[in-house]
Amino acid sequence: MKRPRWITLTTDFGRSDSYVAEMKGVILREHPDAHLIDITHEIPPQDRISGSLVLRRSYRYFPKGTIHLIVVDPGVGTSRKLLIGKAKQYLFLAPDNGLLSPLLAEEPMTFYALSQTRVSSTSSSATFEGRDLLAPAAAKLLRGIPPQKLGRPVRSIVKLSEWDVTFSSRSLRGKILAKDHFGNLITNIRQKDFVKFQAQKKDKPVWVKAGKIIFRGIAHTYAEGQKKPIALFGSAGLLELAVRNGNASHRLSLKQGSHIDLVYGTS
Amino acid sequence: MKRPRWITLTTDFGRSDSYVAEMKGVILREHPDAHLIDITHEIPPQDRISGSLVLRRSYRYFPKGTIHLIVVDPGVGTSRKLLIGKAKQYLFLAPDNGLLSPLLAEEPMTFYALSQTRVSSTSSSATFEGRDLLAPAAAKLLRGIPPQKLGRPVRSIVKLSEWDVTFSSRSLRGKILAKDHFGNLITNIRQKDFVKFQAQKKDKPVWVKAGKIIFRGIAHTYAEGQKKPIALFGSAGLLELAVRNGNASHRLSLKQGSHIDLVYGTS
Amino acid sequence: MKRPRWITLTTDFGRSDSYVAEMKGVILREHPDAHLIDITHEIPPQDRISGSLVLRRSYRYFPKGTIHLIVVDPGVGTSRKLLIGKAKQYLFLAPDNGLLSPLLAEEPMTFYALSQTRVSSTSSSATFEGRDLLAPAAAKLLRGIPPQKLGRPVRSIVKLSEWDVTFSSRSLRGKILAKDHFGNLITNIRQKDFVKFQAQKKDKPVWVKAGKIIFRGIAHTYAEGQKKPIALFGSAGLLELAVRNGNASHRLSLKQGSHIDLVYGTS
Repeated sequence: MKRPRWITLTTDFGRSDSYVAEMKGVILREHPDAHLIDITHEIPPQDRISGSLVLRRSYRYFPKGTIHLIVVDPGVGTSRKLLIGKAKQYLFLAPDNGLLSPLLAEEPMTFYALSQTRVSSTSSSATFEGRDLLAPAAAKLLRGIPPQKLGRPVRSIVKLSEWDVTFSSRSLRGKILAKDHFGNLITNIRQKDFVKFQAQKKDKPVWVKAGKIIFRGIAHTYAEGQKKPIALFGSAGLLELAVRNGNASHRLSLKQGSHIDLVYGTS
Repeated sequence: MKRPRWITLTTDFGRSDSYVAEMKGVILREHPDAHLIDITHEIPPQDRISGSLVLRRSYRYFPKGTIHLIVVDPGVGTSRKLLIGKAKQYLFLAPDNGLLSPLLAEEPMTFYALSQTRVSSTSSSATFEGRDLLAPAAAKLLRGIPPQKLGRPVRSIVKLSEWDVTFSSRSLRGKILAKDHFGNLITNIRQKDFVKFQAQKKDKPVWVKAGKIIFRGIAHTYAEGQKKPIALFGSAGLLELAVRNGNASHRLSLKQGSHIDLVYGTS
Repeated sequence: MKRPRWITLTTDFGRSDSYVAEMKGVILREHPDAHLIDITHEIPPQDRISGSLVLRRSYRYFPKGTIHLIVVDPGVGTSRKLLIGKAKQYLFLAPDNGLLSPLLAEEPMTFYALSQTRVSSTSSSATFEGRDLLAPAAAKLLRGIPPQKLGRPVRSIVKLSEWDVTFSSRSLRGKILAKDHFGNLITNIRQKDFVKFQAQKKDKPVWVKAGKIIFRGIAHTYAEGQKKPIALFGSAGLLELAVRNGNASHRLSLKQGSHIDLVYGTS
C-alpha cells in the first residue's frame, strides 16, 4: 500500500484571509506530496461544539491514514496543550479544548502533547500556532514520523460536556449542537440513544419535544414533512429537526444549546 | 494519453458544513488518484436555474475526460432519477430535475439512470444521496467503468423551461437567470439569439429593454458604461446587465425571472 | 529537484460563481500537473489594498518556484498592463494597478508586461482576462517558459501609496489597511517601523493612538487583553488592533484608511 497522503483542515479562520493558505504553504514546503482537503473553514469563531460536530461526522469518510487537523481555539497563546490523537486508522491534531473528545465514543485513541521544540526549529508566532506548530506537525506525521517523536504521552484530555445526553425513566434529554447551511438543527441524540430509550417501553411510541413543538414520530426522508417541520436521523446519525426545502432554524425558536427531549407518547 | 483524473463538484451545500468534504472522502477512498475541483458550493439552496447556469458556463474549460458532478436537489429522497450524462468529451452526474437540460443545446448526450445496487454495496442514507450514490458513481466512472455498467439507458430527461427564449417579429423575450458575485444580472439570451434577431431587420439597431430601462446598444467591456448600467455579452456568451465597479443588481429593480426584451430601435 | 508545481490564486471573484473554476480548468488543460491552491477569493470587490495585504503576508510560506496569480482589477478591459513579476524564489502575475508594489520592500523583482499574442492563440474575452490571459500565462510559466518569452520588460509599475507610513520626530502615522475574518484591524505599520520609532527616544515608551483610544504598549498574545482591545504585532508582522475572542472592528469606530499613530508616552 502507498503511504497515506491526505491532510484535512477544519478551522474557524474563514475564507477571506490567507490564514488557511499559509498553513497549506507550510505543509507543502515540509512535505510537497501532501494532498490537502478542506473540510470547512467556516466554523463560527471559537465555537468548539460546531467544530467537534463537523469533525465527528466527517473524519470516517476519508482514506485510512488520513491526518485530520482542526483549529478552533479560544485559548490560542495560552498554556493549553496541542494534542496529537492516534486512532486505529487516523491521526488527529487539535488544541486540547474538547474538540477531540466526542470522537472517543467511537474511536479509542491515545494522546500526545505536542512539543514545540520537536516540531519547529525556529521560534514560532505566539498568535498563529496553527501555522507555526500544527501545520509542520501534520506534515511530519504524514511523512511517517511517529507521534511519540513529536510529543509526550498524555493521559487525559479536556472534555466537551455539551455532547452528553441525560437518560431517565421518562425522558431522554439532549440538546441542539448546531445548525447547518440549510437551517437544519442538529442535536446530540444518536440513533443508538434513541433505540435504547425506545427499548425501555416497547409498547409506547417515542415522541420528540423541542420547545413548544411535539414531533409524533421520526421521519425517514426530508420529503416526508411536506412543508411541516420533521424530526429525523440525518446523514451523520444524529437526530435533526428539518423543514423540507425550507429552513427549520428560521421556523422554530431554537438555537445552539436548546433542550430536546425524547418522551413516550400515546399510541 | 493518461487516464482522466478530474472530478468537478457543484452543489448548494454551502461551505460551512462537512457535506462537500464527506463526498470528497468517499471519492478518494474509492479512487485515491482522483483530483477534485470545486466549481462552487454556493448555489442558492434548491436553485436549479443558478446551478444549471454555473455548470453550463464552466464545464467546457476542463480537460477532456473530466467528470462533472452537480447536486442541487429539491427532490432528494423522492423517486426522481439520478442521471449519468455522456457527452463527447465529458461525463455528467446529476439528479434528473433539469440541471443538465441546458447543456443539450451545445452537447449531444446520452443518458443513464443510476442503479443504486450497482453503485453501492451497502445501504445508503436516504438523506444524502450525493455522498452515498453520486460520489461513488463518480469515482467508478473515473476509474473507467462505463456508464452502462452503472445504470440503464433513459430516453428523455426533465427540462428546465427557464432557459427558453421567445422570438417574434418585433421582439425577442428572455429573462434573468441569476445574479453573480459582482451583482451582474445574467440572462438566458445567447449571442446567437441576438445575431439571429438582428438579422431580421438589418437596417435597425437592436435595443435591450429591462423593466423601465432601455439600453441603446450593446457594450463590449465593463469599462464602457462608466457609472451607468450597460448590457453586454459576458464571458459566458450570455447577455448581462452590469455596472462598472458597481452592482447592477442593486441599481436595477430586476431579479431572477424578470423579463428582458430585445427590440428594434430607431437609428 | 523536481520542477515546481504550485500556482496560488487570489481574487475578488467570490466563491458563488464559476469564475475561479474556469481559470483552474484553463490552467489544467494547459498543464495537467499543475497543483492549484486557493489563497482567497473573497477580497472585497475591487479592493486592491486588501488584495495586496493578503498576497504580501502569504506568498513566502509557499515552496520555492510557486507562481502567485492575483486578480483584483477595477480596470479590467482598459489598457492597463498585465504584469509578470520575477522575484528570486517566486513568480507573480497581476494587473498593473499596485497589487504587487508592497512586495518590493521585501522582494527585489523584475517586471514584464504580458503580451496577449504570446499567451493566447485565440481571441480572448474582453471581460475575463483572468481566465483568458493570466491563467494560460501562469500555466506556461509553470511549464518552464521564461517570463521574457511571454512579455516585454517594464521599468516601473503602479504603486499603492496606502502602504506608506509617515515618520516625524513626535509620531509615526500609519493607517488601517483591512479587517480580517475575526474583526482584527490590520495596519500598515511594520515591526521594523516600530523598532526604528522606539529607537529615537529610548527613555520613553511607545503608545498607539487609534481614534480616541490609546493603547499604552504592545501586547504579545491575543490572550493578554482579556476583553479589552489590544495592539499587537500579528502573524503577518504588522501592527493589529484586536479583542480576544471578540471583534475589534465592531468595538472600535475605525475602518479601512483610519489613521493610527505611534507616539511617545509617559513612563
